[in-house]
Amino acid sequence: MSTQKLRIGIIGAGRIGQVHAQTVAFRLPEGEVVAITDMKREAAQALADRCNIPRVAESAAALLEDSQVEAVLICSSTDTHAGLIEQAAQAGKHIFCEKPIAHSLEKIDRALAAVKAAGVQLQIGFNRRFDANFARVRHAVSSGEIGAPRLLHIVSRDPAPPAPEYVRISGGMFMDMTIHDFDMARFLIGDEVEEIYVTGGVMVDEAIGREGDLDTALTVLRFRNGVIGTIDNCRQAAYGYDQRVEILGSEGKIATENCYPNQAVISGGNSVYRDVPLNFFMDRYTESFATELHSFVSSIREGRPTEVTGIDGRIPVVMALAARRSYDEHRPVRLDEIDVGGGEPEPDGHAARLCPQT
Amino acid sequence: MSTQKLRIGIIGAGRIGQVHAQTVAFRLPEGEVVAITDMKREAAQALADRCNIPRVAESAAALLEDSQVEAVLICSSTDTHAGLIEQAAQAGKHIFCEKPIAHSLEKIDRALAAVKAAGVQLQIGFNRRFDANFARVRHAVSSGEIGAPRLLHIVSRDPAPPAPEYVRISGGMFMDMTIHDFDMARFLIGDEVEEIYVTGGVMVDEAIGREGDLDTALTVLRFRNGVIGTIDNCRQAAYGYDQRVEILGSEGKIATENCYPNQAVISGGNSVYRDVPLNFFMDRYTESFATELHSFVSSIREGRPTEVTGIDGRIPVVMALAARRSYDEHRPVRLDEIDVGGGEPEPDGHAARLCPQT
Amino acid sequence: MSTQKLRIGIIGAGRIGQVHAQTVAFRLPEGEVVAITDMKREAAQALADRCNIPRVAESAAALLEDSQVEAVLICSSTDTHAGLIEQAAQAGKHIFCEKPIAHSLEKIDRALAAVKAAGVQLQIGFNRRFDANFARVRHAVSSGEIGAPRLLHIVSRDPAPPAPEYVRISGGMFMDMTIHDFDMARFLIGDEVEEIYVTGGVMVDEAIGREGDLDTALTVLRFRNGVIGTIDNCRQAAYGYDQRVEILGSEGKIATENCYPNQAVISGGNSVYRDVPLNFFMDRYTESFATELHSFVSSIREGRPTEVTGIDGRIPVVMALAARRSYDEHRPVRLDEIDVGGGEPEPDGHAARLCPQT
Amino acid sequence: MSTQKLRIGIIGAGRIGQVHAQTVAFRLPEGEVVAITDMKREAAQALADRCNIPRVAESAAALLEDSQVEAVLICSSTDTHAGLIEQAAQAGKHIFCEKPIAHSLEKIDRALAAVKAAGVQLQIGFNRRFDANFARVRHAVSSGEIGAPRLLHIVSRDPAPPAPEYVRISGGMFMDMTIHDFDMARFLIGDEVEEIYVTGGVMVDEAIGREGDLDTALTVLRFRNGVIGTIDNCRQAAYGYDQRVEILGSEGKIATENCYPNQAVISGGNSVYRDVPLNFFMDRYTESFATELHSFVSSIREGRPTEVTGIDGRIPVVMALAARRSYDEHRPVRLDEIDVGGGEPEPDGHAARLCPQT
Repeated sequence: MSTQKLRIGIIGAGRIGQVHAQTVAFRLPEGEVVAITDMKREAAQALADRCNIPRVAESAAALLEDSQVEAVLICSSTDTHAGLIEQAAQAGKHIFCEKPIAHSLEKIDRALAAVKAAGVQLQIGFNRRFDANFARVRHAVSSGEIGAPRLLHIVSRDPAPPAPEYVRISGGMFMDMTIHDFDMARFLIGDEVEEIYVTGGVMVDEAIGREGDLDTALTVLRFRNGVIGTIDNCRQAAYGYDQRVEILGSEGKIATENCYPNQAVISGGNSVYRDVPLNFFMDRYTESFATELHSFVSSIREGRPTEVTGIDGRIPVVMALAARRSYDEHRPVRLDEIDVGGGEPEPDGHAARLCPQT
Repeated sequence: MSTQKLRIGIIGAGRIGQVHAQTVAFRLPEGEVVAITDMKREAAQALADRCNIPRVAESAAALLEDSQVEAVLICSSTDTHAGLIEQAAQAGKHIFCEKPIAHSLEKIDRALAAVKAAGVQLQIGFNRRFDANFARVRHAVSSGEIGAPRLLHIVSRDPAPPAPEYVRISGGMFMDMTIHDFDMARFLIGDEVEEIYVTGGVMVDEAIGREGDLDTALTVLRFRNGVIGTIDNCRQAAYGYDQRVEILGSEGKIATENCYPNQAVISGGNSVYRDVPLNFFMDRYTESFATELHSFVSSIREGRPTEVTGIDGRIPVVMALAARRSYDEHRPVRLDEIDVGGGEPEPDGHAARLCPQT
Repeated sequence: MSTQKLRIGIIGAGRIGQVHAQTVAFRLPEGEVVAITDMKREAAQALADRCNIPRVAESAAALLEDSQVEAVLICSSTDTHAGLIEQAAQAGKHIFCEKPIAHSLEKIDRALAAVKAAGVQLQIGFNRRFDANFARVRHAVSSGEIGAPRLLHIVSRDPAPPAPEYVRISGGMFMDMTIHDFDMARFLIGDEVEEIYVTGGVMVDEAIGREGDLDTALTVLRFRNGVIGTIDNCRQAAYGYDQRVEILGSEGKIATENCYPNQAVISGGNSVYRDVPLNFFMDRYTESFATELHSFVSSIREGRPTEVTGIDGRIPVVMALAARRSYDEHRPVRLDEIDVGGGEPEPDGHAARLCPQT
Repeated sequence: MSTQKLRIGIIGAGRIGQVHAQTVAFRLPEGEVVAITDMKREAAQALADRCNIPRVAESAAALLEDSQVEAVLICSSTDTHAGLIEQAAQAGKHIFCEKPIAHSLEKIDRALAAVKAAGVQLQIGFNRRFDANFARVRHAVSSGEIGAPRLLHIVSRDPAPPAPEYVRISGGMFMDMTIHDFDMARFLIGDEVEEIYVTGGVMVDEAIGREGDLDTALTVLRFRNGVIGTIDNCRQAAYGYDQRVEILGSEGKIATENCYPNQAVISGGNSVYRDVPLNFFMDRYTESFATELHSFVSSIREGRPTEVTGIDGRIPVVMALAARRSYDEHRPVRLDEIDVGGGEPEPDGHAARLCPQT
C-alpha cells in the first residue's frame, strides 16, 4: 500500500517545515516524506530522525533531482520561494509553497509562468482557509445562510511583536502579517477587492517604526461587488492571539470567537473568567495545517486544481503593495494602480473557483 | 417634600417625549412634570392624563413663560431644537435637548451662546453614555484596566430602515444615526477625533439612495492621541438592533455583547440557539433614558455641569459634516476643514470633562 | 381616570413592602396605594412620604376597615400571614401575600378556607414565575419546543448566609429558601411532585447548624409524570446570587444563565473575564416584582383567577415539610406522607391551571 | 532511535482498538505497535496494513508470548478483560485495559492480584481524565482556586440510545455509561464516595426497559469529605453528546461547556444560533485518547505508577453495583454494603494519588 502514498520532499527544516514534516509522518496516511533538505544540515537530520525520513539531501537542487520525489513543500525563507518554484516546476514536481510567493510581482509572475509551462500543481500555504471557524463562515456566505454579504470585519492580532531584525526582512506588516487577512477577505466574500485605504501607526514598539514599518493598522477594503471590509491588525495583544471574523449579510450575520485551550469558566469573588485564548498560530491553527496538506495531497492524487492556486498567492501581494501605498500617500488606492495588467486570468474563471459548491 | 422636586416642562409629546414623561412620572422621585405642550394638543392631553401632568400649555412659548417651570425637556422635531434652546435660555430655564441640536454649526453656535449668556445648564440627549455596557467600557478605559487604547470598533445597526419620507428630513444617516456613534467614540476614548474617512453605499433600500442618502457605511476615525476607530452602520440587521463596541488597549481589550430579552439557551436537533436581541432603542436603552434624566436633574439640583454639555452636542455635528464630505469627495477629511475655528472651548478644559473620576 | 385605579393597602413597610410600594407608585399606572401600616409607625410614614401614600393606618385592622381599600398586599412577617389573610378575606379585600403563607398546613388551610368563603382573590408572592428567564423556560416546556421533559435542574444559591438570628425564625432553609425552588419546579414542569429525597449538611456556617438548620442541600424530586428534578441550594456563593435552571426534554434542552450588570467582557493578560452576576434578589428580580403586581392588579380588574393561587402557596409548604423529613430520616419521602388528604383540589382542575396557553 | 520506542501489542481491532492503533502509529513518536490480534483476523490485518504494524498474531496468547512486546493494550470485549489482564501480567507485560475491568469484584480482585504479583504496570482506560476541560476542573479543585468543594454536578448524556442487543450484554447503564462518571467524580473531588442514591427510569426506549435496564437516571453521591454530587445520565440527547461538569466551592465555582465543531455564531431573523456540539466520544474525546496513551507510555518508560491504576478501575464498579442496588431497593446504599472489605489499599495511600501536584 505504501507505493500509493504521495512521495514528498521538504525544502526547509525550520518551524513550518517541522510542522509539515510531522503532519505527513504522523497524521497523513496518504503521503510520506522521502527526502528533506535545509541549509543547516543538522536541522534537516534531526527532523529526519524524528519523522523517519530516509534521505537528507545535500541541497534543494539535489532534492529536486530525486526521481522518487513527486511533490515538494517549500518551507524555506521567503526570498527563495519564487526561485524554488521555478526550479521545482522545471523538474516536474508538484509544489506546495509557503506564503508569500515573493515581495515583487515580477518574481511571482515568472514563477507562475514556470508552473503553467510545466503543467504541475501549485498550492500556496494560506492554511487559515482550512480552519473550521473560517470554513464555517465561508459556508454561511456561499450557501446564502446570511444572505448577500454587506460588511466584513477581520481581527488579526498577534500576541507579541516580532524582533526588529525580523521586521527588517519581513517585507513589512502588510506583506508578512496582513497577507493572511487579504487572502481571508477574498476567500470569505468570494469576490475581489478593488480599493484599499489604510490608517495605521506605531503603537507597540518604536523599534518597529525605526525599521520603517507599522505595528498597528486598520485597513478598509472595497470589493467589486460593493462589500466593505476592515482588517484590524496589531502586533501585540496582551491576552494572546486574536483571530476573528464577522460578516453582516442581508439575512443575518455570522461571527467567530477565538479558540480556547478549554471550555471551563470559573466564577470567583471578583469576576467570572476563563483562560486566555490559544496563544499563537502553532496552537491555534494546528488542525488547519494538517487539513491543508491533506487537501494538497488529495488534489494531486485526484488530478484536480488545488484549493489555493498561484493566483491566490499573487493577489494578496498586490493588496499588500496597495495597502502600503495607501499608508504612505494617505489616500484610498485602487488595486489596478499597482497591477496595471491584473495578472493573467485563469482559464476556468475566477469567481467560480472562489465559490465552490458547499 | 414635593416642593423640593425639580419642576419640569416638556415640549413635544411624541415618542421620545412620552418616554421622558413616563420616566419622570413613574421612575424619578426627585422630579415632576408640571406642564406639557405639543403642536398636536390631543397628544399632549393624552400624555398629561396618563402621567398626571397638571397643565397642558397652548404653546412652547406659553410653557416657557410658566414661572413654575424650572427646566424644560425639548423633545420636538430637530428643526426646532436650536430656536427653543435660545428661547428657553432667555427664559432662564435649564435645558435638556434631544440630539442633534441642529444640522448647521451657525444655529448651534447661536444656541450655545444664548445658553452661556443666560448661565443655565444644558444637557444633550446622548443617552447611550448612560447605558450600563458602555459605561463599563468607559470605566475600563479611564481606569487603565486595558491600558492605553489603540483601536476602537463601534457596531451600530438598526433593525429596519426608516421610511424614505423620514430619510428626507433626517439630515442624512451621519446626522441622524451615526451621530450617536460619534458621541460614543469621543466618550469612550476620552479624546477628540481629528480626521474621518468614509466608505459606504446603498445596500438596503434604493429609495434611500434616491433621497441622496446612504444606508450602509464604514467610518474610520483618527483621534488626536493616535487611536484609530471604526463605526459600522447599517440601516438594517435581520436579527434586530445591533449595538456593540470593542476597544483594544495596550494591556487588554474590552468588548460588549448585545442585550437580550432573556438568558435562556435552547439546544435542539439542528442548532444551539437563543432569542434575538432586544429589538430597538426603546427596549434596548430603557434604563439609559431613566439614568440620563436622573443625571440631568441631579446636575441642576446640585449646581454642577451636566454630563453631556453643549460642546458635546456640537462636536458630533462637525463629525457628521466631515463624514459626509469624506463620502462625497472620496478622501480622508480633517475636522478642521469643517470647523475652522473649532467652537469656543469651555473654561474648565475638555479632557478633564471627558474623563470623570471613576 | 384615577377612579379606575385599583386602590391598594399595604401591610408592612419593611424591605419587600418598600419594593411593592415603589412599584405601585412609580411603575404601575393601573393601581395606587391609598393606605399603609406597619408596627413601626415611622417606617410606614417614611414610605408614605416617599411614595405619596395619603394615609398611614394605625394598625392592620384599621387598614382592613378602610372602605377605600380594595386589595391588600401582606408584606409583614411570616407568622402574621395566615391570620391577616383570614381577616382580609373576611373584610372582603382581595389579597396579595408574600410567601410562605405559614409553616403549618393547619394555618394555611384555615386561611384558604376563609378566602374561599369570602370569594376574594388571593395571589402568593412567588415572583420568580414572572422573571423573563424562567417564563421563557416555561414557554419552551408548554409549547413543546423541547419535547416532553425528562430531567430538571434548579440551582439556587444565595451570595451570603443569613444571620443565625434570622435562621432561628425562618422556618429552616427548605421553608425559607427552597420554597421558591419548589414553586419553580411545579411551575416549570406543569405537574406535581410525589416524592422528595434530600442530602445536605452544614458547609457554610456552623452557627446555622447550631440552630438545627442546614446551609447546603441537594434535593431530588420525582414528579407524577416521571420527570426527575434536582434543586441545588447553598446559603453562600462567593461570586454572588446564582439562579439558573435547566430542563432536558425529548427534543432538546433549555438552560438559563445568570443575569449580569452588563454585557462587557474583558480580555487581560491572565484571563478573559466579566463582572460577577447581579448580587441578590432585589437587583436580580426587580422586573419580576413589578410584573407580578401588574398581574395581580390585572387579575382583579378583569375578574379572573390570579396566576399564583392559594394552592400554589400551600403545596411548596408540603414539599418543604417532606424535604425536612427526608433529611431527618435519610430516606425518600412521599408527599402524601405529609399531606394525607392532599388539600382541597380546585374545581377547574390543577394541570390545566399550571399549563396556561402560551 | 526506534529501539527506544516502547513496543506495544494490541488485543482487539474493533472501534477502540483502531483508535489506539492509529494514535500510536501517527501521534505517539515514543511508541510503536509491533503486533496486533483480533478474533476476526481480517480486522486485525486491515488495521495492521493501515498502521504499518509488522505482525498479526494468531491469538491473544500468541501475542503475549511475543518477547518483542513490552506492553499490551486490551481492547477486546469486556468479558475478556480480567482474564487477559491475568495472562498479560503472568507474561510480564505492562497493561493498558479498557474500562470496565469486569462486572464482578471477584474477577477484578483476581486480576489485580496477578498484576501485583507480577510487578507490572496497569492503566485503566478512563480517558476523560485526560480531557482538557476536566483536567482544568481538577486543577481548579486541587490548586484551591475555588476553595473547598461543596457540590458537584456531572451531566453525561449520549446522543442516541444503544441497540437493545448491546444493552443486554452491557452490564447495564451504570456499568456501561455511568462508570465513566463515577471515575470522573472521584477524580475531580479527590476523595471517595461513601453512599449513593439513584432515581431513574425508562424515558427513551421501552426496549431498554424490557432488557431490565434504565435509560435515564439521576445519581446522588455523598463523599466521605461531605461533598454532595449528582450525575445526570440519559441515553438520548436530541442535540448530541452532552458532557459537562460543575463544582461549587467555598471560594467560587467552575463549570465546563460542551465542545463544538467551530466557534461561529449566526444571528438570523428568528434566533441567534451555533452548530450543535461534537456528536459523540470519538470526536469529543479525540485528544484525550492520545493523551492517555502518551501518559501510559511515559509512565512505563519512566518507571512510575500510571495515572489511572487498578484500584481506580475497581472502585467505579463498586459504585455501579451500589447504584443499581439503590435503584432496585429505592433507598440510599452505602458502598461498604457492596464491598465489605473495600479492596486492598495501595501502599502509597489513596488521597495522595488522587491529588497530584498541579
